[in-house]
Amino acid sequence: MDETRVETRLHVTDALAAGREIGLDHGRAHFLRSVLRLSRGAHVAVFNARDGEWLARIDGLGKGWCSLAVARQRREPAPEPDVWTVFAPIKRARIDFLAEKVTELGCAVLQPVITQRTAVSRVNVERLAANAREAAEQCSRLSVPEVREPVSLSALTAAWPAERHLLLCAEAGTATPIAEALAAALTAALAAADSGADSGPWAILTGPEGGFAQSELDALLELPFVTPVGLGPRLLRADTAAVAALACWQAVLGDGRRRPPRGAFLPA
Amino acid sequence: MDETRVETRLHVTDALAAGREIGLDHGRAHFLRSVLRLSRGAHVAVFNARDGEWLARIDGLGKGWCSLAVARQRREPAPEPDVWTVFAPIKRARIDFLAEKVTELGCAVLQPVITQRTAVSRVNVERLAANAREAAEQCSRLSVPEVREPVSLSALTAAWPAERHLLLCAEAGTATPIAEALAAALTAALAAADSGADSGPWAILTGPEGGFAQSELDALLELPFVTPVGLGPRLLRADTAAVAALACWQAVLGDGRRRPPRGAFLPA
Repeated sequence: MDETRVETRLHVTDALAAGREIGLDHGRAHFLRSVLRLSRGAHVAVFNARDGEWLARIDGLGKGWCSLAVARQRREPAPEPDVWTVFAPIKRARIDFLAEKVTELGCAVLQPVITQRTAVSRVNVERLAANAREAAEQCSRLSVPEVREPVSLSALTAAWPAERHLLLCAEAGTATPIAEALAAALTAALAAADSGADSGPWAILTGPEGGFAQSELDALLELPFVTPVGLGPRLLRADTAAVAALACWQAVLGDGRRRPPRGAFLPA
Repeated sequence: MDETRVETRLHVTDALAAGREIGLDHGRAHFLRSVLRLSRGAHVAVFNARDGEWLARIDGLGKGWCSLAVARQRREPAPEPDVWTVFAPIKRARIDFLAEKVTELGCAVLQPVITQRTAVSRVNVERLAANAREAAEQCSRLSVPEVREPVSLSALTAAWPAERHLLLCAEAGTATPIAEALAAALTAALAAADSGADSGPWAILTGPEGGFAQSELDALLELPFVTPVGLGPRLLRADTAAVAALACWQAVLGDGRRRPPRGAFLPA
């Protein structure tokens, strides 16, 4: 077996170790059997953030069930950037897209937040979590982002962990251009690291299609952990702003200097 | 009339000047009349890169026709970044998404390119152009990106304009992290500007879902205008890579330091 050719990756919450047997749920068993048409003896990869990625052999497979025998590790667990995406929910196709893209771009937590002008009242958290899991399986991440229940903007900021920086994507008014803000944050993080300190984790906040209300912006700008940034002269849709800001954050402050694991590739 | 509240923006190719009458095509006339339910006397904005953005009054409106009287300018024409998105075509929902997002992020030209592993053979250029126009109208751009006919990768590089830098998003192998490559390009551009020279325009190249073939990468890396860059340790989908790279490019080398025009806002 050419290990590098095993391209089916499944995120599992089970502890992974050589010789362990794990069972798959109905949906994934069906996927392996009826969509991928795999059978007994075929290999897949299973992974989670705690135990890394392991090769596993299909030991048994029937209608709606599948058992896997974990064989050996092919990637060790490794730390991942701690950056949250906090976003006002948007309509279905766009929120699906947002969940997929911020997962690919290495977001750790998806936190929907309800603002004054948020037009979408219901968020299907399970659906978002399924999108995030699928994107994580595709993009060779070891973790799957946590998708949280929606909260109001005021509740979010009231309970905000003080050490976590919040990059506020502000479409109107004056704000530091994102490249400048990230460069300054990098300088501060390197200075902190030099003196053995941690400059703290981050989150990115984007508003609804109509933008934040002025009173919301005023309140956000009072908070010591908020850095307002501008994303250029065009008005970005909410999903575009979240993806663009996270891409810039990863490039400068995140793991943009790292490379994909050897042998990893996207299916054609 | 509160000018800042006119949020319907239409891209037109007509020359725009006070007092001119312009006609709209069937689709847009229908949109104003039957979707937006506007009537005679209402105002919209019309724009193009050459003449800027103008307020116009609906002078006549019927089934499938509409005439507008151009009133006065509300934004002057302004230079925009000259950056192309060169991308291997992908399947329909994703290519629509890509066209929308790179337009919002200020791309000047969309150039589909056929590579060895490109699975999509037909590109609906008209459909992409319509998506790009709609996104440009939404995001307050003055220009609409040009959507070109697909070409093969070898034809593209053979006819490549020597002064245009090409940022190659390379998912495998060694490549400079994008933040480093852009910082170096900014230093070079500033040095060139100091001596009165222009460091040249840019393009961003992304491959198909299966990535470039090794022979394609080898050939690209021989070209003097190519800068290979890495986008971090996760395998990005083709559409994500194009959007992430363009977002970083605009932040560092493009117009990321500029802000949206006063009074511009996204509809809720």
